[in-house]
Amino acid sequence: MSSEAEPTNQPPTEQPEVADKTGPTKSELKKRAKAAEKEKKAAEKAAKQQELAAQQAASEADYATEFYGTLPLHQSQSRPRRPRVDIASLPSRDGETVLLRARIHNSRAQGSKMVFLNLRQRTESVQALMIVAPEKVSKQMVKWTAGLAIESIVLVEGVVKKSPEIIKSATVGTVEVEISKLYLISGVETRLPFTVEDADRTEAEIEASGDQFNRVLLDTRLNNRVIDLRSQTNQAIFKLQAAVGELFRHHLHSNGFIEIHSPKLQGAATESGASVFKVSYFKGSAFLAQSPQLAKQMAIAADFERVYEIGPVFRAEDSNTHRHLTEFMGLDLEMTIEEHYHEVMEMLDGLFLSIFHGLRDKYKNEISVVNKQFPAEEFKWREGPEGTLKLSFKEAVDLLVEDGVPREVLDDINTENEKRLGRIVRAKYETDYYIIDKFPMELRPFYTMPDPTDPTLSNSYDFFMRGEEILSGAQRIHDPKLLEKQMRAKEIDPESMRGYLDGFRLGCSPHGGGGIGLERVLMLFLKLNNIRRASLFPRDPKRLEP
Amino acid sequence: MSSEAEPTNQPPTEQPEVADKTGPTKSELKKRAKAAEKEKKAAEKAAKQQELAAQQAASEADYATEFYGTLPLHQSQSRPRRPRVDIASLPSRDGETVLLRARIHNSRAQGSKMVFLNLRQRTESVQALMIVAPEKVSKQMVKWTAGLAIESIVLVEGVVKKSPEIIKSATVGTVEVEISKLYLISGVETRLPFTVEDADRTEAEIEASGDQFNRVLLDTRLNNRVIDLRSQTNQAIFKLQAAVGELFRHHLHSNGFIEIHSPKLQGAATESGASVFKVSYFKGSAFLAQSPQLAKQMAIAADFERVYEIGPVFRAEDSNTHRHLTEFMGLDLEMTIEEHYHEVMEMLDGLFLSIFHGLRDKYKNEISVVNKQFPAEEFKWREGPEGTLKLSFKEAVDLLVEDGVPREVLDDINTENEKRLGRIVRAKYETDYYIIDKFPMELRPFYTMPDPTDPTLSNSYDFFMRGEEILSGAQRIHDPKLLEKQMRAKEIDPESMRGYLDGFRLGCSPHGGGGIGLERVLMLFLKLNNIRRASLFPRDPKRLEP
Repeated sequence: MSSEAEPTNQPPTEQPEVADKTGPTKSELKKRAKAAEKEKKAAEKAAKQQELAAQQAASEADYATEFYGTLPLHQSQSRPRRPRVDIASLPSRDGETVLLRARIHNSRAQGSKMVFLNLRQRTESVQALMIVAPEKVSKQMVKWTAGLAIESIVLVEGVVKKSPEIIKSATVGTVEVEISKLYLISGVETRLPFTVEDADRTEAEIEASGDQFNRVLLDTRLNNRVIDLRSQTNQAIFKLQAAVGELFRHHLHSNGFIEIHSPKLQGAATESGASVFKVSYFKGSAFLAQSPQLAKQMAIAADFERVYEIGPVFRAEDSNTHRHLTEFMGLDLEMTIEEHYHEVMEMLDGLFLSIFHGLRDKYKNEISVVNKQFPAEEFKWREGPEGTLKLSFKEAVDLLVEDGVPREVLDDINTENEKRLGRIVRAKYETDYYIIDKFPMELRPFYTMPDPTDPTLSNSYDFFMRGEEILSGAQRIHDPKLLEKQMRAKEIDPESMRGYLDGFRLGCSPHGGGGIGLERVLMLFLKLNNIRRASLFPRDPKRLEP
Repeated sequence: MSSEAEPTNQPPTEQPEVADKTGPTKSELKKRAKAAEKEKKAAEKAAKQQELAAQQAASEADYATEFYGTLPLHQSQSRPRRPRVDIASLPSRDGETVLLRARIHNSRAQGSKMVFLNLRQRTESVQALMIVAPEKVSKQMVKWTAGLAIESIVLVEGVVKKSPEIIKSATVGTVEVEISKLYLISGVETRLPFTVEDADRTEAEIEASGDQFNRVLLDTRLNNRVIDLRSQTNQAIFKLQAAVGELFRHHLHSNGFIEIHSPKLQGAATESGASVFKVSYFKGSAFLAQSPQLAKQMAIAADFERVYEIGPVFRAEDSNTHRHLTEFMGLDLEMTIEEHYHEVMEMLDGLFLSIFHGLRDKYKNEISVVNKQFPAEEFKWREGPEGTLKLSFKEAVDLLVEDGVPREVLDDINTENEKRLGRIVRAKYETDYYIIDKFPMELRPFYTMPDPTDPTLSNSYDFFMRGEEILSGAQRIHDPKLLEKQMRAKEIDPESMRGYLDGFRLGCSPHGGGGIGLERVLMLFLKLNNIRRASLFPRDPKRLEP
């Protein structure tokens, strides 16, 4: 582009001799000579400038046009099969020329000849720099690169070099990439609501900055979940979410359980009609299962012996709290009992311990990443021969009464008192994880087996983490006559659950089980304080998007 | 219970002498003597009978009352911690006294002193016998046991003994159990719609019996699914269903995929509005996701790189065919593309091969159990360097044209021609598994990436098993402008999918994926002929129960 440097005003290089009849005065001559001299100097200066400009223009002809730019839309045009690398592998590639796809996490131009990029792949990042170099990197290339929006996805070629000092702003700190080529794969076509750096900033950092940094509020995050999920914290949270599911399955497989998938569309509003979503089903209606309870019990009646399911459960409760979702993931299991429902309770206890161990042993890094943004006392549980703390409902009430709660309000333990109990238990028994057994019958669903000696009590239990319930379970009634009686007592029409009742009429083993809320376990283990943070795209009474 | 044997009529043992003034006639005396004699004999006979009855009563006093009977309702009354055993372990327990819980699969009394039971635990069964023995097994005990309904659940104690000859009617044929105690845990309180033996009977057996046995029709099975699921065939089918999920996860884990859970409740009727179920959502409406398509693409835009999900998908299609359900399990995955969408296609191919291998290598028994009832040619696929057969859509059309199908009807390949193609391919290439690539653009959803050179084609593929589609997938459009244009072309309002579109506006890597129908894979691998057989509690336009 030399047109701008084209000279537009060619001054005469020589002053023409001018004869004048009247003749100039001496001072006039002197003046003229001075002016001529001035004009000459100006002309000389202009010529020099012009020459410089031309030189500069020549030097700035872009020799790097092949090495940068926007790629055409990726439609799988070709397949050169050239290996691309992960940022995490770079420390072992010192000296290699590598190709990698990454996001621009941030960028900083230094003058017109250099730009630093922080390149990111998921939770890994590395510093990259681009420096003007003859025939390789042009000023235009640097300028274009520096102008790319944060969060753009680029294809980068460069040489891996040991960094002169550890780079603290990147997860890979021992090497950096000296960029030779850089192409834009996907740009950003909207104003970023916040950056991933904003999303990852800790409360401590915000306070230390004198509130110079913005706090990204939860609603803003959830409204822009796609960018929020790119944060280190969220990448770790959802790796941990997957881990909980994996540990759950692994433990149950090694204990002879089989995975089942039960339908979410139900013909009747079962369990407790009030909190069930209604679905238009062709010319009639269906209802969304609020748990796989009935199906997994029918699987027991069908001799599956030990079953589990990981699937969505739906609750049409208009609860706008930190711990309620209208759709969440249920980790459910059901198993036959030989002698006593404590067989089930112990199976569930072993399951939780294996999940806690698995997380602590295999996901230390992810937990510590989350802890940066969500500081929490380390989750504690009891080990060894004393085992998990088990209280009866009555003992739990007594602990609360000792602590000053009036016994009259403790027919049920409400959320507030649950948390209080959590604090009492942690102080007294040094554990964040415990079981409450033998709940009053009237607090439990119709299919709960009554205690054999005290009909006001039931063979049921809840499990707690940091003072919040994460599992509810029980021995179930396997006798169809008692089941029918209990249904009627809770004003449920047995006819509306015929398929379920018929299962027991065909003979069914004694059995029990429980249901775990995946998001709750994650929230409480990591102390995320709001269940929405533990759900990829959370759903509550006011949120159906994105 | 000696009351019934109590003598009710004590005849006089001596006849009193009677003096008569008038005096009897000679014949009269004779008569009297005869009558007296007769009476005496009758009395003697009665006395003898009475004695016998008393003897018999004494001999039948039930000395075994402790050894059998109905247990009280299992409410976890006690926990003796007495080990119970699996039927499968019995061959190694010769001579041991064992305790086990099992169903009575069938029973056969032999006279009044012996009863044979076939005891069943899931797919395992063993012969047990109960023989009258003094002080141990009473006639009453045998009678009561023989009267127990088939499918009752019992607790059995007995001695394991080598059987004199292999027992063919049980899976464990080398030993039998000589029962010493038997208690009823759960009885059958309804007429059995069919027995498990009926459910397991093969077509060949029914035909060989001259149609003496009943065919249990599919609808009858599904209406009584709990008992149907107890059959050997169904126990195997659902073990295989769990296996497919497990193999799917295992392969993807080892390829760096992470499991996600996306919401099934959606704010808008996405993808194709017509086939979406509408849900009442508090004061508004929601819709059931007909695939995790949007969510998994947003996960890619959120830098998860490789994701999978196993979850229910909902289709409000009024299709009453052998291969449609309104709710089925989707095995979905999505991954970023570096150079070419064939990277995804090859990942999916590797995934299927690992599933097929896993099933064939680890589940031989289950497959052969299912094959008994559903005979099928063994599922074939291509191995080694030639690899999986890949045809372009055009090549597939050409094969059909060669086979006599008019080219004019082949703008799309309908179900019938799909099956025909399956037969052609099997004959020509000896495989039941193949891929068709490069579908016409107009047959694919709006988010499908067009071919780079021919805009009438797309970067999309279907996978087939035995001539039926089991996976549909493609490279997706990651450019928000093109995506919006394609939406409008299919008359979808971009505003209704803002959260989704915004994901791409924030920069998104090229990516692709696919969705597999779990029940279809199972149905076609095992040739079950109806998808309902591959679903625990199937849902179709006419079935929401049980």
